[in-house]
Amino acid sequence: MNVLVWNEFRHEKENDVVADIYPEGIHGAIAEFLGEDHPTVKTATLDEEEHGLTDEVLNETDVLVWWGHKAHDEVSEEVAEKVKQRVLDGMGLVVLHSAHFSKPFKKLMGTSCDLKWREADDKERIWVVDPTHPITEGLGEYIDIEKEEMYGEHFDIPAPDELLFVSWFEGGEVFRSGATFRRGRGKIFYFRPGHETYPTYYHKEVQKVIKNGVKWAVNNETPTPIYGNAQPLETITKK
Amino acid sequence: MNVLVWNEFRHEKENDVVADIYPEGIHGAIAEFLGEDHPTVKTATLDEEEHGLTDEVLNETDVLVWWGHKAHDEVSEEVAEKVKQRVLDGMGLVVLHSAHFSKPFKKLMGTSCDLKWREADDKERIWVVDPTHPITEGLGEYIDIEKEEMYGEHFDIPAPDELLFVSWFEGGEVFRSGATFRRGRGKIFYFRPGHETYPTYYHKEVQKVIKNGVKWAVNNETPTPIYGNAQPLETITKK
Amino acid sequence: MNVLVWNEFRHEKENDVVADIYPEGIHGAIAEFLGEDHPTVKTATLDEEEHGLTDEVLNETDVLVWWGHKAHDEVSEEVAEKVKQRVLDGMGLVVLHSAHFSKPFKKLMGTSCDLKWREADDKERIWVVDPTHPITEGLGEYIDIEKEEMYGEHFDIPAPDELLFVSWFEGGEVFRSGATFRRGRGKIFYFRPGHETYPTYYHKEVQKVIKNGVKWAVNNETPTPIYGNAQPLETITKK
Amino acid sequence: MNVLVWNEFRHEKENDVVADIYPEGIHGAIAEFLGEDHPTVKTATLDEEEHGLTDEVLNETDVLVWWGHKAHDEVSEEVAEKVKQRVLDGMGLVVLHSAHFSKPFKKLMGTSCDLKWREADDKERIWVVDPTHPITEGLGEYIDIEKEEMYGEHFDIPAPDELLFVSWFEGGEVFRSGATFRRGRGKIFYFRPGHETYPTYYHKEVQKVIKNGVKWAVNNETPTPIYGNAQPLETITKK
Repeated sequence: MNVLVWNEFRHEKENDVVADIYPEGIHGAIAEFLGEDHPTVKTATLDEEEHGLTDEVLNETDVLVWWGHKAHDEVSEEVAEKVKQRVLDGMGLVVLHSAHFSKPFKKLMGTSCDLKWREADDKERIWVVDPTHPITEGLGEYIDIEKEEMYGEHFDIPAPDELLFVSWFEGGEVFRSGATFRRGRGKIFYFRPGHETYPTYYHKEVQKVIKNGVKWAVNNETPTPIYGNAQPLETITKK
Repeated sequence: MNVLVWNEFRHEKENDVVADIYPEGIHGAIAEFLGEDHPTVKTATLDEEEHGLTDEVLNETDVLVWWGHKAHDEVSEEVAEKVKQRVLDGMGLVVLHSAHFSKPFKKLMGTSCDLKWREADDKERIWVVDPTHPITEGLGEYIDIEKEEMYGEHFDIPAPDELLFVSWFEGGEVFRSGATFRRGRGKIFYFRPGHETYPTYYHKEVQKVIKNGVKWAVNNETPTPIYGNAQPLETITKK
Repeated sequence: MNVLVWNEFRHEKENDVVADIYPEGIHGAIAEFLGEDHPTVKTATLDEEEHGLTDEVLNETDVLVWWGHKAHDEVSEEVAEKVKQRVLDGMGLVVLHSAHFSKPFKKLMGTSCDLKWREADDKERIWVVDPTHPITEGLGEYIDIEKEEMYGEHFDIPAPDELLFVSWFEGGEVFRSGATFRRGRGKIFYFRPGHETYPTYYHKEVQKVIKNGVKWAVNNETPTPIYGNAQPLETITKK
Repeated sequence: MNVLVWNEFRHEKENDVVADIYPEGIHGAIAEFLGEDHPTVKTATLDEEEHGLTDEVLNETDVLVWWGHKAHDEVSEEVAEKVKQRVLDGMGLVVLHSAHFSKPFKKLMGTSCDLKWREADDKERIWVVDPTHPITEGLGEYIDIEKEEMYGEHFDIPAPDELLFVSWFEGGEVFRSGATFRRGRGKIFYFRPGHETYPTYYHKEVQKVIKNGVKWAVNNETPTPIYGNAQPLETITKK
């Protein structure tokens, strides 16, 4: 199983606070803990050739984890379309935090994916609202994060196929923080936390959720539909 | 309440069979029966300036009904984006038959919207699977259509918010024929029947469903979310 | 359209605080504002013969509003089953606050309907998360309630067909406060606020939601399914 | 992982046709192929003490497979309630064919679970409508069954959390043949085929679906919610 962590990798180069928290980049931190489950976690970043997402790389990726924030527009239309198409063809996609505004996620959702936000050290408490889902395995009833960026409703996404988490924020907002979507043959998991100026991706329960999400998003052997003109399977009476 | 019926309006000009069935165009036939409920049903077609979908027209439209088939690609990107945006802003959209492949619907769904198809005079029986929904008002348990084009699963759409109808086809296929989706502030209803070479839009129960769909899709006074940076509603403790 | 408001009507008789807030009973307060929309709002209470829910009353009721709290167990199994059956047959049901534990709701949900709770004057903020839904018409982005009982997740209900509201509570919890369910031919709306010691049912936006919920829950003319042994509609080949 | 196959086990004793097809009982046939995946598949039947479903047996069961038909009423209320409660507590439940009318399933659904039916050697074709779901792994686009009992819409269940399969029947009906539901901490999978007079449970693809369903329904380590009175997690301002 091949996992690829994609990161914009700009904040880490331009902001000392972020660089101090994530010296190997956000992708490095995520790849490290995912590496506990998967021997071959790779990474790719915006400034690589084709953003590190060549056809070959995409075709061999089973689950893609995506983090982006300030440079969504620099992702080329062509690569964004390819990522979308690979998801429809069966690649799993785990969309983190500010990647709600990434091109692949917006193309797959069909909505603005807009929301309220605030950088004010809100306390966040992420409540589990679906205690049957494998993405919640190993968790307690909620995850506390001491300080995070706030994201608030209305979150302009389609009604999720499954709503797993709802966040409470100190400043008075709520947010649908964990949600799954199926598109084509692909499974998508959006998970809210992870602003670049906080050490959120070192939080053990946040890591657990992302690990679970990667496992859930794999899709190896489900049917491949055939589209287009089709001969009848039964006799059609001439009328 | 302003209803607008949009039609590609090409088959009717190029194919005598279609012209005979729909001498006023498919849009004309649909506008006529919708006119029984709404005094001001307007129409627009592909070959008009801006496809008849100027900002002014779109902004005053409450529900847009869309039929297209062979010229989806001739709808400009700009107009398709505007239609999508108006739906997200609250305009209802009723998507008929081959408009499953129309640009606005594909953009709003985020999937290929592909399916199986066959033109072979299949009998179609459209079963109601949600007998609570206002779009099914006035119907019996199913609608029989003597001859129609077949559409078969897999239909590559997101799982609908509500699945209302499932079709049985003589040749051995099934299809999710009536489905609703909410995107942004807009309500979308997809309804399958209506191949251009059959008189489907004169079928009283098909008309009833489309009438119901138009009524359901209106959205006048629901909240308008505010997005972007937000001040806290409660005091955030300095930590 | 016949609306019936059912109330346990015990707190009002036993607790002066409640009696002061609702001198005509909670049912009286609800019936009064619903009466602004519907000329014939009736009421029924637990201590009436058959709890005021005779076959005749139930059969002519289009939408039943239910409030109960401390005497759920005194509702007879027979009446609870009849209410459930009428919902399956098409009667709308609006379930308020502590009626999450009422017999009809639990029977219709199939789950424990359990939750966290606290009576501690929490501030509640009810956020709209589905700005397409007619039950949200006329509202802003959220409803503020100065003091209310807290209900917290996990709320043990099936995943709602539509999630409309999510509450934020001062004490750190969230709750799926407004949710719809379809069961049989019936439409059900659960709405959280309304603890008996607070004047919540005088809150104009709370009233608006309940009014909208009653309108939404009516189901007059959708198909009535036929169940049981069925003759084939097409010829079955002898094999 | 402990799998338990429960069977009414009456047809096999009373009808030679059924006995010839399933000499070890329907439970025996199902346990045999499930045994290819799980070393410890056990069985239980109606006429055993407590229907073979003692507290000890239920508590150690991870996934329960249920087949019943003519003797649903002989399942005691007490045992039916215990099964329901174990599902809410996290036991998986795979409900086969005529068990749509079993007490545990009806209690968990809250609806009549009624449907149309016919024993007339209909051909059935089960189409995959969700090609992302692990329960569809290893299948093609559809499963053909030469002869089966017909089940037709309307199927009176809540809208499924996930709709996986839709059946086409030769006689003109359709049916939502594979559907999942979450209730409490439990995962439920309903799968349609398996009338006792046909050798359906020897069909390799039917077996594959049931095997996949059992794997999917396990729920080991998700959070266990705490219900009831709860202390605040944040300070509540005295007002």
